[in-house]
Amino acid sequence: MPHIALPEGLPGIRGAMAFRPETAKPLNELVEVLLHNPGTLSEGERELIATYVSYLNDCHYCQSIHGAIAAAHLNGDEELVRRVKADFQHAAIPDKLKALLVIVAKVQKGGRSVTTEDVAAARRLGATDHEIHDTVLIAAAFCMYNRYVDGLDTIQPHDEAMYRERGKAVAREGYVAISKTYLPAEPVAR
Amino acid sequence: MPHIALPEGLPGIRGAMAFRPETAKPLNELVEVLLHNPGTLSEGERELIATYVSYLNDCHYCQSIHGAIAAAHLNGDEELVRRVKADFQHAAIPDKLKALLVIVAKVQKGGRSVTTEDVAAARRLGATDHEIHDTVLIAAAFCMYNRYVDGLDTIQPHDEAMYRERGKAVAREGYVAISKTYLPAEPVAR
Repeated sequence: MPHIALPEGLPGIRGAMAFRPETAKPLNELVEVLLHNPGTLSEGERELIATYVSYLNDCHYCQSIHGAIAAAHLNGDEELVRRVKADFQHAAIPDKLKALLVIVAKVQKGGRSVTTEDVAAARRLGATDHEIHDTVLIAAAFCMYNRYVDGLDTIQPHDEAMYRERGKAVAREGYVAISKTYLPAEPVAR
Repeated sequence: MPHIALPEGLPGIRGAMAFRPETAKPLNELVEVLLHNPGTLSEGERELIATYVSYLNDCHYCQSIHGAIAAAHLNGDEELVRRVKADFQHAAIPDKLKALLVIVAKVQKGGRSVTTEDVAAARRLGATDHEIHDTVLIAAAFCMYNRYVDGLDTIQPHDEAMYRERGKAVAREGYVAISKTYLPAEPVAR
Protein backbone atom coordinates (compact mmCIF):
# COMPACT_ATOMS: atom_id res chain seq x y z
CA MET A 1 0.00 0.00 0.00
CA PRO A 2 1.40 3.42 -0.92
CA HIS A 3 2.69 5.63 1.90
CA ILE A 4 0.03 8.28 1.13
CA ALA A 5 -3.53 8.06 -0.26
CA LEU A 6 -2.85 8.02 -4.00
CA PRO A 7 -5.69 7.70 -6.54
CA GLU A 8 -6.41 4.01 -7.16
CA GLY A 9 -5.93 2.14 -10.41
CA LEU A 10 -2.92 4.16 -11.57
CA PRO A 11 0.37 2.26 -11.18
CA GLY A 12 3.80 3.77 -10.59
CA ILE A 13 4.38 7.43 -11.26
CA ARG A 14 0.90 7.88 -12.71
CA GLY A 15 -0.72 7.60 -9.27
CA ALA A 16 1.71 10.15 -7.83
CA MET A 17 1.17 12.49 -10.76
CA ALA A 18 -2.61 12.30 -10.48
CA PHE A 19 -2.28 13.14 -6.77
CA ARG A 20 -0.41 16.39 -7.58
CA PRO A 21 -1.09 17.64 -11.12
CA GLU A 22 0.83 20.88 -10.50
CA THR A 23 4.11 18.99 -10.28
CA ALA A 24 3.05 16.40 -12.88
CA LYS A 25 3.04 19.10 -15.55
CA PRO A 26 6.77 19.99 -15.43
CA LEU A 27 7.67 16.33 -14.71
CA ASN A 28 5.96 15.26 -17.94
CA GLU A 29 7.37 18.18 -19.92
CA LEU A 30 10.91 17.38 -18.81
CA VAL A 31 10.73 13.73 -19.85
CA GLU A 32 9.03 14.71 -23.12
CA VAL A 33 11.95 17.00 -24.08
CA LEU A 34 14.60 14.53 -22.94
CA LEU A 35 13.18 11.26 -24.27
CA HIS A 36 10.54 11.95 -26.91
CA ASN A 37 11.35 15.17 -28.78
CA PRO A 38 13.54 14.83 -31.90
CA GLY A 39 17.24 14.49 -31.09
CA THR A 40 20.54 13.14 -32.43
CA LEU A 41 20.35 10.23 -29.99
CA SER A 42 17.46 8.04 -31.11
CA GLU A 43 14.43 7.61 -28.88
CA GLY A 44 15.45 3.98 -28.43
CA GLU A 45 18.92 5.01 -27.24
CA ARG A 46 17.54 7.59 -24.83
CA GLU A 47 15.01 5.10 -23.43
CA LEU A 48 17.85 2.61 -22.93
CA ILE A 49 19.66 5.25 -20.86
CA ALA A 50 16.50 5.81 -18.77
CA THR A 51 16.04 2.05 -18.37
CA TYR A 52 19.64 1.49 -17.34
CA VAL A 53 19.70 4.15 -14.62
CA SER A 54 16.31 2.92 -13.34
CA TYR A 55 17.79 -0.58 -13.18
CA LEU A 56 20.81 0.73 -11.23
CA ASN A 57 18.40 2.45 -8.83
CA ASP A 58 16.45 -0.82 -8.54
CA CYS A 59 13.11 0.79 -9.45
CA HIS A 60 10.89 -1.99 -10.77
CA TYR A 61 8.20 0.21 -12.31
CA CYS A 62 10.55 2.60 -14.11
CA GLN A 63 12.92 -0.03 -15.52
CA SER A 64 9.91 -2.07 -16.69
CA ILE A 65 8.00 0.72 -18.41
CA HIS A 66 11.04 2.44 -19.93
CA GLY A 67 12.44 -0.93 -20.96
CA ALA A 68 9.14 -1.59 -22.74
CA ILE A 69 9.19 1.84 -24.40
CA ALA A 70 12.80 1.23 -25.48
CA ALA A 71 11.85 -2.16 -26.95
CA ALA A 72 8.91 -0.56 -28.77
CA HIS A 73 11.38 1.85 -30.41
CA LEU A 74 13.82 -1.02 -31.17
CA ASN A 75 11.58 -3.32 -33.21
CA GLY A 76 10.41 -5.13 -30.09
CA ASP A 77 13.91 -6.32 -29.18
CA GLU A 78 13.34 -7.05 -25.48
CA GLU A 79 16.45 -9.24 -25.37
CA LEU A 80 18.62 -6.22 -26.24
CA VAL A 81 17.05 -4.26 -23.38
CA ARG A 82 17.81 -7.12 -20.95
CA ARG A 83 21.37 -7.31 -22.26
CA VAL A 84 21.96 -3.58 -21.79
CA LYS A 85 20.86 -3.83 -18.17
CA ALA A 86 22.93 -6.93 -17.43
CA ASP A 87 26.13 -6.17 -19.37
CA PHE A 88 25.94 -3.21 -21.75
CA GLN A 89 29.61 -3.45 -22.74
CA HIS A 90 28.77 -6.69 -24.59
CA ALA A 91 25.38 -5.61 -25.94
CA ALA A 92 24.81 -4.92 -29.65
CA ILE A 93 24.71 -1.13 -29.27
CA PRO A 94 26.98 1.59 -30.71
CA ASP A 95 30.29 2.25 -28.96
CA LYS A 96 29.22 5.87 -28.45
CA LEU A 97 26.19 4.72 -26.46
CA LYS A 98 28.42 2.42 -24.38
CA ALA A 99 30.63 5.41 -23.51
CA LEU A 100 27.53 7.42 -22.58
CA LEU A 101 26.28 4.56 -20.35
CA VAL A 102 29.60 4.72 -18.48
CA ILE A 103 28.77 8.36 -17.70
CA VAL A 104 25.21 7.37 -16.72
CA ALA A 105 26.51 4.89 -14.14
CA LYS A 106 28.77 7.59 -12.68
CA VAL A 107 25.93 10.12 -12.46
CA GLN A 108 23.80 7.51 -10.68
CA LYS A 109 26.48 7.21 -7.98
CA GLY A 110 26.82 10.99 -7.73
CA GLY A 111 27.58 13.83 -10.13
CA ARG A 112 31.13 14.27 -8.87
CA SER A 113 31.98 10.73 -10.00
CA VAL A 114 31.98 11.78 -13.66
CA THR A 115 35.57 12.35 -14.81
CA THR A 116 37.14 14.41 -17.57
CA GLU A 117 38.34 11.11 -19.06
CA ASP A 118 34.80 9.63 -19.10
CA VAL A 119 33.64 12.65 -21.09
CA ALA A 120 36.70 12.65 -23.38
CA ALA A 121 36.11 8.96 -24.17
CA ALA A 122 32.51 9.66 -25.19
CA ARG A 123 33.64 12.62 -27.28
CA ARG A 124 36.27 10.51 -29.09
CA LEU A 125 33.44 8.17 -30.12
CA GLY A 126 31.47 11.06 -31.59
CA ALA A 127 29.33 12.30 -28.69
CA THR A 128 28.49 16.01 -28.95
CA ASP A 129 28.25 18.44 -26.04
CA HIS A 130 24.49 18.40 -26.50
CA GLU A 131 24.40 14.59 -26.26
CA ILE A 132 26.66 14.60 -23.20
CA HIS A 133 24.45 17.24 -21.56
CA ASP A 134 21.30 15.26 -22.22
CA THR A 135 22.88 12.00 -21.05
CA VAL A 136 23.85 13.59 -17.73
CA LEU A 137 20.40 15.15 -17.34
CA ILE A 138 18.49 11.97 -18.28
CA ALA A 139 20.54 10.01 -15.73
CA ALA A 140 20.01 12.71 -13.10
CA ALA A 141 16.30 13.02 -13.87
CA PHE A 142 15.75 9.29 -13.42
CA CYS A 143 17.52 9.49 -10.06
CA MET A 144 14.55 11.75 -9.29
CA TYR A 145 11.74 9.81 -10.98
CA ASN A 146 12.94 6.51 -9.44
CA ARG A 147 13.08 8.00 -5.93
CA TYR A 148 9.65 9.60 -6.41
CA VAL A 149 8.08 6.29 -7.48
CA ASP A 150 9.76 4.20 -4.77
CA GLY A 151 9.77 6.85 -2.03
CA LEU A 152 5.96 6.97 -2.06
CA ASP A 153 5.78 3.16 -2.33
CA THR A 154 3.54 3.39 -5.41
CA ILE A 155 1.79 0.35 -6.85
CA GLN A 156 4.23 -1.48 -9.16
CA PRO A 157 2.59 -4.40 -10.97
CA HIS A 158 4.58 -7.45 -12.08
CA ASP A 159 2.74 -7.89 -15.36
CA GLU A 160 4.97 -7.86 -18.42
CA ALA A 161 2.04 -7.71 -20.84
CA MET A 162 0.77 -4.52 -19.18
CA TYR A 163 4.16 -2.81 -19.53
CA ARG A 164 4.51 -4.04 -23.13
CA GLU A 165 1.17 -2.56 -24.17
CA ARG A 166 1.68 0.67 -22.28
CA GLY A 167 5.22 0.94 -23.67
CA LYS A 168 3.93 0.82 -27.24
CA ALA A 169 1.38 3.54 -26.49
CA VAL A 170 3.91 5.87 -24.85
CA ALA A 171 6.45 5.27 -27.64
CA ARG A 172 3.78 6.28 -30.15
CA GLU A 173 2.11 9.21 -28.37
CA GLY A 174 4.76 10.66 -26.05
CA TYR A 175 4.54 11.57 -22.40
CA VAL A 176 2.62 14.83 -22.40
CA ALA A 177 -0.11 13.62 -24.76
CA ILE A 178 -0.68 10.34 -22.91
CA SER A 179 -0.70 12.11 -19.52
CA LYS A 180 -3.94 13.82 -20.54
CA THR A 181 -5.70 10.45 -20.17
CA TYR A 182 -5.12 10.38 -16.40
CA LEU A 183 -4.52 14.01 -15.36
CA PRO A 184 -7.25 16.63 -14.94
CA ALA A 185 -7.52 18.96 -17.94
CA GLU A 186 -6.71 22.04 -15.87
CA PRO A 187 -4.52 21.60 -12.80
CA VAL A 188 -6.18 23.17 -9.77
CA ALA A 189 -4.12 24.93 -7.12
CA ARG A 190 -4.22 23.28 -3.70
CA MET B 1 36.46 23.74 -16.31
CA PRO B 2 33.02 22.32 -17.08
CA HIS B 3 32.87 19.01 -18.97
CA ILE B 4 31.05 20.70 -21.89
CA ALA B 5 31.16 24.23 -23.33
CA LEU B 6 28.68 26.03 -21.08
CA PRO B 7 27.98 29.77 -21.46
CA GLU B 8 30.49 31.75 -19.37
CA GLY B 9 29.71 33.90 -16.36
CA LEU B 10 26.77 31.80 -15.14
CA PRO B 11 27.65 29.67 -12.09
CA GLY B 12 26.10 26.33 -11.15
CA ILE B 13 22.83 25.28 -12.70
CA ARG B 14 22.40 28.61 -14.45
CA GLY B 15 25.16 27.80 -16.95
CA ALA B 16 23.62 24.39 -17.66
CA MET B 17 20.16 25.92 -18.03
CA ALA B 18 21.38 28.60 -20.44
CA PHE B 19 23.03 25.83 -22.52
CA ARG B 20 19.68 24.04 -22.94
CA PRO B 21 16.68 26.35 -22.41
CA GLU B 22 14.21 23.63 -23.49
CA THR B 23 14.98 21.60 -20.36
CA ALA B 24 15.50 24.70 -18.21
CA LYS B 25 11.81 25.57 -18.58
CA PRO B 26 10.35 22.50 -16.83
CA LEU B 27 13.30 22.42 -14.38
CA ASN B 28 12.45 25.97 -13.26
CA GLU B 29 8.72 25.32 -13.20
CA LEU B 30 9.18 22.24 -11.01
CA VAL B 31 11.25 24.04 -8.41
CA GLU B 32 8.87 27.01 -8.50
CA VAL B 33 5.89 24.79 -7.60
CA LEU B 34 7.81 22.83 -4.97
CA LEU B 35 9.72 25.63 -3.23
CA HIS B 36 8.16 29.00 -4.05
CA ASN B 37 4.42 28.63 -4.59
CA PRO B 38 2.19 29.01 -1.51
CA GLY B 39 2.07 25.86 0.62
CA THR B 40 1.44 24.63 4.17
CA LEU B 41 5.16 24.11 4.66
CA SER B 42 6.76 27.56 4.71
CA GLU B 43 9.21 28.56 2.00
CA GLY B 44 11.94 28.57 4.63
CA GLU B 45 11.11 24.97 5.62
CA ARG B 46 11.05 23.79 2.03
CA GLU B 47 14.36 25.51 1.27
CA LEU B 48 15.86 23.82 4.35
CA ILE B 49 14.78 20.47 2.88
CA ALA B 50 16.44 21.36 -0.46
CA THR B 51 19.56 22.53 1.35
CA TYR B 52 19.79 19.40 3.47
CA VAL B 53 19.52 16.94 0.59
CA SER B 54 22.04 19.01 -1.42
CA TYR B 55 24.38 18.81 1.57
CA LEU B 56 23.93 15.02 1.75
CA ASN B 57 24.74 14.86 -1.98
CA ASP B 58 27.80 17.04 -1.34
CA CYS B 59 26.82 19.61 -3.99
CA HIS B 60 28.57 22.86 -3.07
CA TYR B 61 26.62 25.15 -5.38
CA CYS B 62 23.16 23.83 -4.48
CA GLN B 63 23.66 23.69 -0.72
CA SER B 64 25.14 27.22 -0.79
CA ILE B 65 22.44 28.88 -2.89
CA HIS B 66 19.48 27.07 -1.29
CA GLY B 67 21.01 27.61 2.15
CA ALA B 68 21.14 31.33 1.33
CA ILE B 69 17.54 31.33 0.06
CA ALA B 70 16.47 29.50 3.22
CA ALA B 71 18.26 32.06 5.39
CA ALA B 72 16.62 34.89 3.45
CA HIS B 73 13.23 33.40 4.32
CA LEU B 74 14.30 32.86 7.96
CA ASN B 75 15.24 36.43 8.95
CA GLY B 76 18.83 35.89 7.80
CA ASP B 77 19.45 33.09 10.31
CA GLU B 78 22.47 31.45 8.63
CA GLU B 79 23.41 29.71 11.86
CA LEU B 80 20.12 27.79 11.78
CA VAL B 81 20.85 26.65 8.23
CA ARG B 82 24.30 25.42 9.30
CA ARG B 83 22.78 23.63 12.28
CA VAL B 84 20.17 21.84 10.16
CA LYS B 85 22.92 20.50 7.89
CA ALA B 86 25.18 19.42 10.74
CA ASP B 87 22.62 18.02 13.20
CA PHE B 88 19.00 18.76 12.41
CA GLN B 89 17.68 16.74 15.36
CA HIS B 90 19.11 19.40 17.69
CA ALA B 91 18.26 22.42 15.55
CA ALA B 92 15.53 24.90 16.54
CA ILE B 93 13.01 23.67 13.99
CA PRO B 94 9.54 22.12 14.45
CA ASP B 95 9.39 18.40 15.28
CA LYS B 96 7.28 17.85 12.16
CA LEU B 97 10.10 19.20 10.01
CA LYS B 98 12.58 16.94 11.81
CA ALA B 99 10.41 13.93 10.96
CA LEU B 100 10.24 15.08 7.34
CA LEU B 101 14.03 15.45 7.24
CA VAL B 102 14.33 11.81 8.32
CA ILE B 103 12.32 10.92 5.21
CA VAL B 104 14.53 13.23 3.11
CA ALA B 105 17.67 11.40 4.19
CA LYS B 106 16.05 8.07 3.27
CA VAL B 107 15.00 9.32 -0.17
CA GLN B 108 18.55 10.55 -0.76
CA LYS B 109 19.85 7.00 -0.21
CA GLY B 110 17.11 5.51 -2.41
CA GLY B 111 13.33 5.61 -2.51
CA ARG B 112 12.98 2.10 -1.14
CA SER B 113 14.67 3.17 2.10
CA VAL B 114 11.59 5.09 3.21
CA THR B 115 9.59 2.97 5.67
CA THR B 116 5.96 2.91 6.75
CA GLU B 117 7.19 3.87 10.22
CA ASP B 118 9.07 6.94 8.91
CA VAL B 119 5.87 8.15 7.30
CA ALA B 120 3.70 7.30 10.32
CA ALA B 121 6.08 9.25 12.57
CA ALA B 122 5.75 12.34 10.38
CA ARG B 123 1.98 11.96 10.27
CA ARG B 124 1.78 11.71 14.09
CA LEU B 125 3.52 15.08 14.23
CA GLY B 126 0.95 16.62 11.93
CA ALA B 127 2.34 16.08 8.44
CA THR B 128 -0.36 15.81 5.77
CA ASP B 129 -0.25 13.52 2.74
CA HIS B 130 0.36 16.60 0.62
CA GLU B 131 3.35 17.61 2.75
CA ILE B 132 4.75 14.06 2.71
CA HIS B 133 4.34 13.95 -1.08
CA ASP B 134 6.15 17.24 -1.54
CA THR B 135 8.91 16.29 0.88
CA VAL B 136 9.60 13.10 -1.07
CA LEU B 137 9.52 14.96 -4.39
CA ILE B 138 11.72 17.85 -3.19
CA ALA B 139 14.29 15.33 -1.92
CA ALA B 140 14.07 13.34 -5.17
CA ALA B 141 14.23 16.47 -7.33
CA PHE B 142 17.41 17.66 -5.61
CA CYS B 143 18.97 14.26 -6.22
CA MET B 144 18.48 15.33 -9.86
CA TYR B 145 19.52 19.00 -9.63
CA ASN B 146 22.64 18.10 -7.59
CA ARG B 147 23.72 15.44 -10.10
CA TYR B 148 23.04 17.81 -13.00
CA VAL B 149 25.18 20.56 -11.47
CA ASP B 150 28.04 18.27 -10.44
CA GLY B 151 27.81 15.82 -13.36
CA LEU B 152 28.61 18.63 -15.82
CA ASP B 153 31.30 20.02 -13.48
CA THR B 154 29.71 23.48 -13.56
CA ILE B 155 31.47 26.54 -12.12
CA GLN B 156 30.77 26.65 -8.36
CA PRO B 157 32.18 29.80 -6.74
CA HIS B 158 33.26 29.87 -3.10
CA ASP B 159 31.96 33.36 -2.40
CA GLU B 160 29.48 33.58 0.45
CA ALA B 161 28.53 37.17 -0.33
CA MET B 162 27.52 36.18 -3.88
CA TYR B 163 25.24 33.39 -2.61
CA ARG B 164 23.79 35.69 0.08
CA GLU B 165 22.83 38.39 -2.44
CA ARG B 166 21.51 35.91 -4.97
CA GLY B 167 19.61 34.08 -2.25
CA LYS B 168 17.76 37.24 -1.28
CA ALA B 169 16.80 37.90 -4.90
CA VAL B 170 15.52 34.35 -5.51
CA ALA B 171 13.60 34.37 -2.21
CA ARG B 172 11.91 37.58 -3.30
CA GLU B 173 11.26 36.89 -6.99
CA GLY B 174 11.03 33.12 -7.30
CA TYR B 175 12.71 30.77 -9.76
CA VAL B 176 10.74 31.26 -12.95
CA ALA B 177 10.79 35.08 -12.80
CA ILE B 178 14.51 35.30 -12.06
CA SER B 179 15.36 32.74 -14.76
CA LYS B 180 14.21 35.26 -17.37
CA THR B 181 17.34 37.31 -16.60
CA TYR B 182 19.64 34.59 -17.99
CA LEU B 183 17.49 32.48 -20.34
CA PRO B 184 16.47 33.50 -23.86
CA ALA B 185 12.91 34.84 -24.04
CA GLU B 186 11.75 32.11 -26.39
CA PRO B 187 13.51 28.72 -26.21
CA VAL B 188 14.66 27.66 -29.68
CA ALA B 189 14.54 24.02 -30.72
CA ARG B 190 17.93 22.45 -31.46
